[in-house]
Amino acid sequence: MSGNTFGKIFKITTFGESHGRAIGVIIDGVPAQLDFDLDFIQSELDRRKPGQSKMTTARSEADKIEVMSGVFENKTTGTSLAMMIFNQDQHSKDYSNIASTYRSGHADFTYDMKYGFRDYRGGGRSSGRETAARVAAGAVAKLILRQYGVNITAGAVSIGNVCGEIIDLSAPEKNVVRAFDPNMADEMEREVASAASCGDSVGGVVACFADGVPSGLGEPVFDKLDALLAHAMLSLGSVKGIEFGNGFEASRLRGSENNDRFIADGKLETNRCGGVLGGISTGSRIEFKVAVKPTPSVSIEQQTIDKNLQECTLKINGRHDPCIVPRIVPVVEAMTAIVLCDLLLCARSSRMK
Amino acid sequence: MSGNTFGKIFKITTFGESHGRAIGVIIDGVPAQLDFDLDFIQSELDRRKPGQSKMTTARSEADKIEVMSGVFENKTTGTSLAMMIFNQDQHSKDYSNIASTYRSGHADFTYDMKYGFRDYRGGGRSSGRETAARVAAGAVAKLILRQYGVNITAGAVSIGNVCGEIIDLSAPEKNVVRAFDPNMADEMEREVASAASCGDSVGGVVACFADGVPSGLGEPVFDKLDALLAHAMLSLGSVKGIEFGNGFEASRLRGSENNDRFIADGKLETNRCGGVLGGISTGSRIEFKVAVKPTPSVSIEQQTIDKNLQECTLKINGRHDPCIVPRIVPVVEAMTAIVLCDLLLCARSSRMK
Amino acid sequence: MSGNTFGKIFKITTFGESHGRAIGVIIDGVPAQLDFDLDFIQSELDRRKPGQSKMTTARSEADKIEVMSGVFENKTTGTSLAMMIFNQDQHSKDYSNIASTYRSGHADFTYDMKYGFRDYRGGGRSSGRETAARVAAGAVAKLILRQYGVNITAGAVSIGNVCGEIIDLSAPEKNVVRAFDPNMADEMEREVASAASCGDSVGGVVACFADGVPSGLGEPVFDKLDALLAHAMLSLGSVKGIEFGNGFEASRLRGSENNDRFIADGKLETNRCGGVLGGISTGSRIEFKVAVKPTPSVSIEQQTIDKNLQECTLKINGRHDPCIVPRIVPVVEAMTAIVLCDLLLCARSSRMK
Amino acid sequence: MSGNTFGKIFKITTFGESHGRAIGVIIDGVPAQLDFDLDFIQSELDRRKPGQSKMTTARSEADKIEVMSGVFENKTTGTSLAMMIFNQDQHSKDYSNIASTYRSGHADFTYDMKYGFRDYRGGGRSSGRETAARVAAGAVAKLILRQYGVNITAGAVSIGNVCGEIIDLSAPEKNVVRAFDPNMADEMEREVASAASCGDSVGGVVACFADGVPSGLGEPVFDKLDALLAHAMLSLGSVKGIEFGNGFEASRLRGSENNDRFIADGKLETNRCGGVLGGISTGSRIEFKVAVKPTPSVSIEQQTIDKNLQECTLKINGRHDPCIVPRIVPVVEAMTAIVLCDLLLCARSSRMK
Repeated sequence: MSGNTFGKIFKITTFGESHGRAIGVIIDGVPAQLDFDLDFIQSELDRRKPGQSKMTTARSEADKIEVMSGVFENKTTGTSLAMMIFNQDQHSKDYSNIASTYRSGHADFTYDMKYGFRDYRGGGRSSGRETAARVAAGAVAKLILRQYGVNITAGAVSIGNVCGEIIDLSAPEKNVVRAFDPNMADEMEREVASAASCGDSVGGVVACFADGVPSGLGEPVFDKLDALLAHAMLSLGSVKGIEFGNGFEASRLRGSENNDRFIADGKLETNRCGGVLGGISTGSRIEFKVAVKPTPSVSIEQQTIDKNLQECTLKINGRHDPCIVPRIVPVVEAMTAIVLCDLLLCARSSRMK
Repeated sequence: MSGNTFGKIFKITTFGESHGRAIGVIIDGVPAQLDFDLDFIQSELDRRKPGQSKMTTARSEADKIEVMSGVFENKTTGTSLAMMIFNQDQHSKDYSNIASTYRSGHADFTYDMKYGFRDYRGGGRSSGRETAARVAAGAVAKLILRQYGVNITAGAVSIGNVCGEIIDLSAPEKNVVRAFDPNMADEMEREVASAASCGDSVGGVVACFADGVPSGLGEPVFDKLDALLAHAMLSLGSVKGIEFGNGFEASRLRGSENNDRFIADGKLETNRCGGVLGGISTGSRIEFKVAVKPTPSVSIEQQTIDKNLQECTLKINGRHDPCIVPRIVPVVEAMTAIVLCDLLLCARSSRMK
Repeated sequence: MSGNTFGKIFKITTFGESHGRAIGVIIDGVPAQLDFDLDFIQSELDRRKPGQSKMTTARSEADKIEVMSGVFENKTTGTSLAMMIFNQDQHSKDYSNIASTYRSGHADFTYDMKYGFRDYRGGGRSSGRETAARVAAGAVAKLILRQYGVNITAGAVSIGNVCGEIIDLSAPEKNVVRAFDPNMADEMEREVASAASCGDSVGGVVACFADGVPSGLGEPVFDKLDALLAHAMLSLGSVKGIEFGNGFEASRLRGSENNDRFIADGKLETNRCGGVLGGISTGSRIEFKVAVKPTPSVSIEQQTIDKNLQECTLKINGRHDPCIVPRIVPVVEAMTAIVLCDLLLCARSSRMK
Repeated sequence: MSGNTFGKIFKITTFGESHGRAIGVIIDGVPAQLDFDLDFIQSELDRRKPGQSKMTTARSEADKIEVMSGVFENKTTGTSLAMMIFNQDQHSKDYSNIASTYRSGHADFTYDMKYGFRDYRGGGRSSGRETAARVAAGAVAKLILRQYGVNITAGAVSIGNVCGEIIDLSAPEKNVVRAFDPNMADEMEREVASAASCGDSVGGVVACFADGVPSGLGEPVFDKLDALLAHAMLSLGSVKGIEFGNGFEASRLRGSENNDRFIADGKLETNRCGGVLGGISTGSRIEFKVAVKPTPSVSIEQQTIDKNLQECTLKINGRHDPCIVPRIVPVVEAMTAIVLCDLLLCARSSRMK
């Protein structure tokens, strides 16, 4: 069964393996006459690409996006928009150890169980590299959302055990860990460096905010705004949890404490609900947090099993992100943009007029 | 745009308002020749229905399920299976106050923003009552999963500020709060009673376990097992967050600590990942937790706004669940069953043979 | 795999067996605030119901439609709209002969091959009775289309070997065979009577016209307007073919003869294309014809096989339509309305503005 | 709304314009471990490509297929399979006349009405060139069907006014018009030449046969085998009609004449139904015919209108197929293969065991 498509009207279908020939996306459902901004799309990919800092893997990929269809005279045509990134360091590695051995925390074992074999080169389809296609699609969604005044910002609120505050929405692009708290960015960076120095890795928590979202987005019963965002976020391999507004904290409050009070003009005095009531946007800021696990690829030798399910040891060589958080930030934004853009288009048929 | 359908092969479409004529579900994609067990389906609905204990609303609904199609000679026919529950106390109430006033924490405001008006009787389509249709569908999914040896159990791990342990999977059906920890059940019950006595409400955390799930379920990239479960759970109006395995805790661990070690026979020594790697089941137990917010309907007088967006006060009369946790437990199980059943059927086309 | 759903935004899901408890439909995606006209819906069902004339089966079903959800204060709410018809003569018949014998031209054999058994009562799910649910859904679609000025009319152009002309779009509702040609209606009626008198049946050709359809409907590449209409029509059990505009005749013309010339104001001088170019409506009348096979249930004794694949004879008793054409006319209209309504809603997201 | 995806489990999504950078397809849902045969796929594309004979346009495109993902060690991986063809004569032409003028019989006008503008280079997305992506996907479907013993053959039964018989299923690959009747192939060829010599074009009728299709394929109610094939065929721009088995002829027969008699072993004595009863395959040959219109691009000067809806004359220069029938034959086969392959995979979840 197919699982490489996401969205209902703004519908993306992605393809590509980490070390295959190319990765890419077809977006079906882009409205015609959107001003296409390839530079912006490339800039979003640059925010995700490897090798931006010592926080990230040194794999050298330019991640240059190329448009195959759907754009004419610099406007979208309304037909399927295809974009691709050709992989550069395609055939360069020796994968003999991971070909026959299951890496802990990766999809090697489960892919073999599911399909009977797998493309083991760099994780194949299960590699985080597939998220580049999401970022490209998300950038197109952002171009559309911009016309509606919707703005999306994600950033780190914690790295390992170092927590920050949500101080400045513009901060994440100004520090290498992409933290909202400029005061804690250095300490977060040290947390990563400390793990990296032992060949280990750390995770973190990413918050995402969407401002300017009109009220009325989200489709009851199953396609609630928060349900679709949760779907989108948990489809990222390294995300292990999500919470909206005050999230798990809400479970400890009383109803009278947790309820956000409506005030004049249909605003809410507080936003514990995270901008969603009954699965539909309130018109306030959409807010959620996701838990990002530490990269499972650590260079410390680990006990594991091989293809014959016999125990063995594995030492993963090569360069891996000691912390994926900074690079997942634009991916979280992209998936948020895809969900919101889809729901904006869905909302066009909510009423007779 | 339509949002009342969930699932790809085992596909459910639900309908019905809280105080409309009936609620129900069509399940399309039930394989033929499943032994149909109406008593079991009814027993699942009985676990969800109101009036089971003082924990729950006293609304008196028998929630008697009736089969309209898709079953012949006590077996499923392979065609669309329709089930309905006729509402009993349909026209009995006076809704004049909530017709023109927005209840805090409810979908009243957002439905009006989306659709221009709403069925205000008991929340209409946004009422938790719609989950009865999910439980009916989930019971059919459980009948299928049973044939594969899959067993699903949910229960409370905390109620308000009272936390318990996961002590006994059979415990939830033996105490009124449906806690896994029999030692804490009484204290949890007192937590609810304490809130109820002030006209207030409490939330909690529900854990869910699926045992016997074969490895290989889940569809990369977007329809990962955990992504679909997150979608399913966040489509419940009172759920504000979800985490798989150690969830948010993972964000604070190092990779070497968080990785689960593969051991002989393809087992995992630990299950921090919650039974899912790369979005595909490992063959170990599927584990996740959801945050349930306190019921927003409290009988304490609240400040809010009316349809004209003018401030006013609202006093919600009538009987509401002071804690929805015990009743959401079978709903969480049902949605889990629907996801797993769908993925089991999807997996039938994963390989050529 | 599920096949009981049709449409993308205006999405219908139907259920029900010929002699089960009820048949019905959930329409998901009806825009909010449509004025709901139950009398009109009932009148459409009355056009399809059995027993209208000697042309049709004498099965006595009132086909009274009942609304279960999705309508409030006589307007659609935007949430799933469920409608049902309870079957009346549910348990009345003796099916022992068709339970174990395969009727020629019916789905008895193929259902058994597919599902291993079948609900044999009156054809179960494969009965033409399921089309009542389509007519109900189509009536809602017509209510929407009316707001856009779209009008759909179907009628017979031939019955057996008797052909008529397209003389008067209002004629079909004025003669029992629902012919467009009032001058040939009597002869068509005699054609049916002649077959009926021998216990035999006849088919015919139905034409359908949609006027007022704006240009721009239809979604390239796969969801072309004509592709969706063909899907819709061939999903009717008795339809064996479809042609748009001059259809098969086009295959015998030269390009210069077949092309319709554009004239001032974007009109077409002729309409050989049937109102569709490149799968998108031109703004001219949509025109197509469908071939309806003679009802396979004839009371003449037939050779066939039984469940054990042994040859036997079968004499079908009871009252069957000697010609289904008059009753399929409202069904053809209904499916056309569903397709056009869906595409009208789809078109709302074709462009940025 | 998106319309570039077709299929439920074996799901194809295509992209690309006639004179854009590339055209291609992502197939999601290919089962893992299919032996991938790129040469076969290329050979199918070669059957469709332009320039094979004087029957077809001289546009010189090698149509070399390239695999981007989804294949590893010459087997399908189970993840999305992407294939592309880079366009060669991309920027070569002068389109000034068709940029501002609407070609008769083409989608120029309707695309402008729908999207507000269009990629006019060679028809852009509405060009028949998009069918190359379908042929590539269909070839993969054929590889799967081969494993099940299903074989699909299409060919011409008439060209313009010249009709042939279904004499030899292997004949079509042996004559330039791809006729089933070797005795009429020369006359058909002359029919094309005669039209071409006047700058005109001819259409024809194509028949398609699928042998070896097991009984039980097709999903009631809406996704009947014939409904899906009709959808698939009418999604081809030049197809104006379809009929199954005896098709429109059935409308003139009596029921007793039209019914196919079941005989021992579940065979049918005749196959007037075209291999489908109640939308489900009988196990006999699937048979249908499609009407192909004459290519609208004729070099005769035509009256038409321009972008301002003013009348003007248009003379289309360049090389166009005087008859598209020979090249549509592999496309008809491809779409048939895609439908049957999808339904074969769907059938895997029809029953509990």
